[in-house]
Amino acid sequence: MILDQLDHPIVQAPMAGGPSTPALAAAVSEAGGLGFVAAGYRSPEVMRDDIAEVRAATEAPFGVNLFVPGSPDVDEAALRAYVEELGPEAGEPRFDDDGWEQKLAFLRDEPVAVVSFTFGCPSPDIVASLRDAGSEVWATVTSPAEARIARDAGADALVLQGVEAGGHRGTFDDPPGGGEGLSALTLLRLVASEIDLPLVPTGGITDGPALAAVLAAGAAAAHLGSAFMLCPEASTNPAHRAALATEAPTALTRAFSGRLARGIENQFMRDHDAHAPRAYPHVNHATSPIRAAAREREDPDGFNLWAGQAHRLARPLPAAELVRELSAGALEALEQAAARQTR
Amino acid sequence: MILDQLDHPIVQAPMAGGPSTPALAAAVSEAGGLGFVAAGYRSPEVMRDDIAEVRAATEAPFGVNLFVPGSPDVDEAALRAYVEELGPEAGEPRFDDDGWEQKLAFLRDEPVAVVSFTFGCPSPDIVASLRDAGSEVWATVTSPAEARIARDAGADALVLQGVEAGGHRGTFDDPPGGGEGLSALTLLRLVASEIDLPLVPTGGITDGPALAAVLAAGAAAAHLGSAFMLCPEASTNPAHRAALATEAPTALTRAFSGRLARGIENQFMRDHDAHAPRAYPHVNHATSPIRAAAREREDPDGFNLWAGQAHRLARPLPAAELVRELSAGALEALEQAAARQTR
Repeated sequence: MILDQLDHPIVQAPMAGGPSTPALAAAVSEAGGLGFVAAGYRSPEVMRDDIAEVRAATEAPFGVNLFVPGSPDVDEAALRAYVEELGPEAGEPRFDDDGWEQKLAFLRDEPVAVVSFTFGCPSPDIVASLRDAGSEVWATVTSPAEARIARDAGADALVLQGVEAGGHRGTFDDPPGGGEGLSALTLLRLVASEIDLPLVPTGGITDGPALAAVLAAGAAAAHLGSAFMLCPEASTNPAHRAALATEAPTALTRAFSGRLARGIENQFMRDHDAHAPRAYPHVNHATSPIRAAAREREDPDGFNLWAGQAHRLARPLPAAELVRELSAGALEALEQAAARQTR
Repeated sequence: MILDQLDHPIVQAPMAGGPSTPALAAAVSEAGGLGFVAAGYRSPEVMRDDIAEVRAATEAPFGVNLFVPGSPDVDEAALRAYVEELGPEAGEPRFDDDGWEQKLAFLRDEPVAVVSFTFGCPSPDIVASLRDAGSEVWATVTSPAEARIARDAGADALVLQGVEAGGHRGTFDDPPGGGEGLSALTLLRLVASEIDLPLVPTGGITDGPALAAVLAAGAAAAHLGSAFMLCPEASTNPAHRAALATEAPTALTRAFSGRLARGIENQFMRDHDAHAPRAYPHVNHATSPIRAAAREREDPDGFNLWAGQAHRLARPLPAAELVRELSAGALEALEQAAARQTR
């Protein structure tokens, strides 16, 4: 397992559509963690270029994350009403599969160390084909039931996404009420009690002591998103960076994409959350020009400020330095806690 | 601090209105943890009797938890409509202050080791009066903002309630949407980053590795509720015990009490959740006879099955044995994690 070979038990969460860059992934992997190329929303060609850029920067292993396509079928009337509410700047809502087959074909031809999946679990055949090509396959799950499906499909490791995590919930089906919303620590203990695979929790793990916590609870490594969003290697928008450094509350919303995701509360969320339908990626395409314009003018009230609940603890350090500090901080926290218990 | 004197970093969460008994509190304290008398919903006289019963069983320190009274003002029309929906079995909705002044007066006269508060923070005067009487004062908080209020009121320690926790959310004001719902680990790290008080997280901590996790993240001890609900010393209803042992999902609802609380999803919740107003303790009194009748017939679909998200991990052990096993399991998990990090 790649996880056994890392110098530091730290995986950089793929952050599609914003902060992730090949430079960030390469810096984390080169420092002895595991970087990820966020291929979601990217065309197969851009994914290929991103992978080439990471390969040019480091010989260390890294991962690629893909979105599992959902269903084109949505409540068309609710979707039309929502697009109307968004106003004349809205784009055309439409379904797409995020280049699924082309991305898989590319990854079979030119395998990377790890291929991870979000929004579902690929079939056992797809998992087997990637493993045959030489990759480990990781699945993102949010419940013990999803963890069993991923195990049965042949996954090599599970990313356990807690409700604290920023960005999209990785639920397989985006249940209407959002589902139970297990925290990362709870999900870790529930899954560890029944499934014998390496577990990589994510959500709210932003400093050394939180990393120590999940390692103590049995995690093989932690998957950190918000922690890396202020790194100079990340392409996080300046307005987004400023919001992350405050204690602004986060909330779950479908307003931006039609799928539940956690971000810092802003005016766009307050205006639209109550009316946003379950319609992904349809709504994501509809809001795309609105979000792009707000990013351009650095307006924090106009686009998605994805952030985990502990975003205020993120630090603006170069990624390699951050990886080393988080790892050292975790070890110190573990040793101190063990010493207190044995006093 | 009491926390420095415990043999095991384990506090038994007060579980008002059901599982808590003097026998459970005494067993936990006698074993070297800290037991709690749950004085919420109890009359001052019954609180006094419960305290006497714990004192008769152990010389070890224990705590008493009080509910801070809220406001009698509620949306009367919504409350009336809800009571009508509940049907002819419903009781009379009414406000009360849970015997606040009498309970405080008793605790000043006959102090216990710790007095903790839920649903708000008492004034600095009240905190000072209890400390003068010889008690430590702990406040339950759910956010950094509440933690600052409690620190400024003079609290000696903070119980940090994560969104995973079973039973009532300890928010000061029961915000309409429920608030951000920080997880226990996230809340712990956010508060630890700014407040220098002993921190006692609660929510989802049901086994040794989860206890290890919060200790690694800086907790002085953990506050466990669901973990103790299957103990023979607890007065948990048989139908409640059976539900806890399954992986039935939990959800937050105001259906039972008019205040947000987490329990295992059942028919009562599904029937009434969408219409329940914010009106505590009014709704609690209205549902009281319905809940009592369902408990009597051991009908899990008719009363509140309070439970934290990790309830499936609770074990039916005597409380003293459980305290020792949790503590030993935590130490083992810390040592193993530290060894893995230094390999």
